[in-house]
Amino acid sequence: MAEFRMTECIRKTKQGIALSDAEIQSLVNGIVGKDGAEKIAEYQLAAWLMAVCFRGLTDRETATLTMAMRDSGQKLSYPTLGTVVDKHSTGGVGDKTTLILAPIVAACGVPMPKMSGRGLGHTGGTIDKLESIPGLTTALSPERFLELAETVGCAVAMQTGNLAPADKKLYALRDVTETVLSIPLICASIMSKKLATGADCILLDVKVGSGAFMKTDEEAAELAKLMIAAATADGKKCTAILTDMDRPLGYCIGNALEVEEAVRVLRGEETGVLAELCTTLAAELLCMAGKGSHDACLAMAKQAVTSGAALETFRAMVAGQGGDAGIVDDLKKLPQAKCSRVLLSEQDGWISAMESEEIGRACVLLGAGRMTMEDTIDPAAGIRLHVQVGDEVHKGDALMTLYADSEEKIDEAAAKLRENVKISAECNEHKPLIHAKYSNI
Amino acid sequence: MAEFRMTECIRKTKQGIALSDAEIQSLVNGIVGKDGAEKIAEYQLAAWLMAVCFRGLTDRETATLTMAMRDSGQKLSYPTLGTVVDKHSTGGVGDKTTLILAPIVAACGVPMPKMSGRGLGHTGGTIDKLESIPGLTTALSPERFLELAETVGCAVAMQTGNLAPADKKLYALRDVTETVLSIPLICASIMSKKLATGADCILLDVKVGSGAFMKTDEEAAELAKLMIAAATADGKKCTAILTDMDRPLGYCIGNALEVEEAVRVLRGEETGVLAELCTTLAAELLCMAGKGSHDACLAMAKQAVTSGAALETFRAMVAGQGGDAGIVDDLKKLPQAKCSRVLLSEQDGWISAMESEEIGRACVLLGAGRMTMEDTIDPAAGIRLHVQVGDEVHKGDALMTLYADSEEKIDEAAAKLRENVKISAECNEHKPLIHAKYSNI
Repeated sequence: MAEFRMTECIRKTKQGIALSDAEIQSLVNGIVGKDGAEKIAEYQLAAWLMAVCFRGLTDRETATLTMAMRDSGQKLSYPTLGTVVDKHSTGGVGDKTTLILAPIVAACGVPMPKMSGRGLGHTGGTIDKLESIPGLTTALSPERFLELAETVGCAVAMQTGNLAPADKKLYALRDVTETVLSIPLICASIMSKKLATGADCILLDVKVGSGAFMKTDEEAAELAKLMIAAATADGKKCTAILTDMDRPLGYCIGNALEVEEAVRVLRGEETGVLAELCTTLAAELLCMAGKGSHDACLAMAKQAVTSGAALETFRAMVAGQGGDAGIVDDLKKLPQAKCSRVLLSEQDGWISAMESEEIGRACVLLGAGRMTMEDTIDPAAGIRLHVQVGDEVHKGDALMTLYADSEEKIDEAAAKLRENVKISAECNEHKPLIHAKYSNI
Repeated sequence: MAEFRMTECIRKTKQGIALSDAEIQSLVNGIVGKDGAEKIAEYQLAAWLMAVCFRGLTDRETATLTMAMRDSGQKLSYPTLGTVVDKHSTGGVGDKTTLILAPIVAACGVPMPKMSGRGLGHTGGTIDKLESIPGLTTALSPERFLELAETVGCAVAMQTGNLAPADKKLYALRDVTETVLSIPLICASIMSKKLATGADCILLDVKVGSGAFMKTDEEAAELAKLMIAAATADGKKCTAILTDMDRPLGYCIGNALEVEEAVRVLRGEETGVLAELCTTLAAELLCMAGKGSHDACLAMAKQAVTSGAALETFRAMVAGQGGDAGIVDDLKKLPQAKCSRVLLSEQDGWISAMESEEIGRACVLLGAGRMTMEDTIDPAAGIRLHVQVGDEVHKGDALMTLYADSEEKIDEAAAKLRENVKISAECNEHKPLIHAKYSNI
């Protein structure tokens, strides 16, 4: 093989010339110093990443990059578990689906051991949400993680450092060089980790709208198809659902608040859009896992909630990860905020928009999120919505309640929220929660 | 002023949004750590440079960047010299004009103290050429440099480290990230140094064609106009001449060989295209320096050659820089190659092309150039052309003589040259040496 030269890769990508499989493999080896490869300078990687943002990559380059990144570190497998499923969301505001979905699917007999990450910026992270439960840890040993998957059927662990380390390195660089927004790079980042995690069936929840990386259905569809192609190349079943992120998902945003809402859905108390989405996603996973037709799987998922089986699985998972399972029966045991304030509507009309990205940012101001990985978060902080987009409101009606540890934070967030919750004189139509579905099965 | 954030600069340039003057100033301060600025990470600079390659910069951004880079280090001035002129060539093959031009202009009473650089890749550097003269040094102290400018009228010194250090840093990064080819960045790089050097009148020789960075007249004109605008903003007179680089300039390529050719022109022995270009460029400089009309200046420049005044100035400069001025009378005192070989024409016809970039690369193979700044060069190596593009040749005619310190190097270069000297059955028309002229006077 010809000697690898990073300048040559940058030049080709800059000029729109596809890299060979060998070049991409060498590039990934050079990111992590694998197989004795010399480490590529970060400034060369940064220049290449920016060229990718402008020129894109071919589908073949994207698939090769994804596979090479998957192989850059440890790969998991679950030989004792049978068919294992996994889910990934591209990141939204108020997205607590994993907390609901994993127990439902596990209660239906399909194991869902899940690696997850912390939140950053305006989007939350499942790890942060779960850790708001007193005592709960997500730093599970591989043995404990597998044991919970075998006995309870689900567990959520913090992603370990050695899973797709090339992605970890590349993502850190993309984050500080404005090169996050590239569909092939997003595909390689997500799918390298998902494929290294070793599930047989992968469900991708691709968020689309103002609060998501993908602003349009076209971009989201392109990303979905690329990710499915990578899964196909690796022999995995994969379905992608495009879901709306013009508005936050559900009524709660903030870590303990979202656990509370998840428990209410699992108790069968909440039956709105969020509950519907979770049973729909569960049906997709059960379907891929060979549990029957889509209709049969949907009925099975709903039954897991109404029977209480999913709630009991959630309780067992919380207890299994060292958390206080008493929160399931008494939600007041979750962290409670020192201060709260109800925002009232100042006019009559219909809720026409709630910019979810801005609502996510307001949550960061309240202390529920972090702007850098070093920030600490307040588990009790956040927002409880009393209305959804499309609802009619009257002057003086409660729009939302804000939670934080100081009145100052609430003042700051309230000002931002006032700007970003729009009330119009007319009732407008709104997009459905699910925009489209793509699958390789 | 708002806090400077490099990610914000990258994002704006990536999206085609112009940076403010303050942002560009902060960016340049961050390159060199000036005014207590925190150093910007190289990976962030690299990402920004690649975004500039794709999006360009506005004329205002380019001018602001140029000025900020000019001010990033030391600035020279010549208060005792009156009107001082300078010349810059964007880099060509066989371009020894400085060696001829500076003595002509100085002999006409206009001082031309010149900072210059070494060659890299397929293009040569004036410093390397001059240093092929036994004993000559270009590492002149500021005092000696000024003294020679005052007494002889010209001197060529190696550029010092503290002149436009932001350019030095940025250029090193561009070189390894495939971001050299950007007209605004090339403008800022060249003009920041030229303006820091302190000449009152600047002549830009913008090479255009296969052997140059600028491949088309359109690109070269864009660069020329941007550079003139930067000079205008700084209150300097500036003229740019677009000259052909589809073919090498003159008959010799290689360091000592080019000194030999320069001496022959100054002696009045060579009266071809090179001599014509040098008197034309000299006339432009004299004209900018207020020495009279263009016609009068051209006559003055020619007279400086025919009278021998320019040759005597060259002799004084060589002696003043510690070199053996005896080479002026006996060219055999210049370094002589161990091996040489004459390449003969294998057919009848007309020379239709001599790809100057490839001829430059063949010279590197012979030992006359360097691929990295650490390589050493052989001053005697190079190529002496016996024909020029457009000449008629017969089978068996000498095309060129190659010089090196081994037959192996000559073998390698000869194979490359055979491929890149084209002989056609018909006589084609060729572009004139001077394509266009732009000026702010």
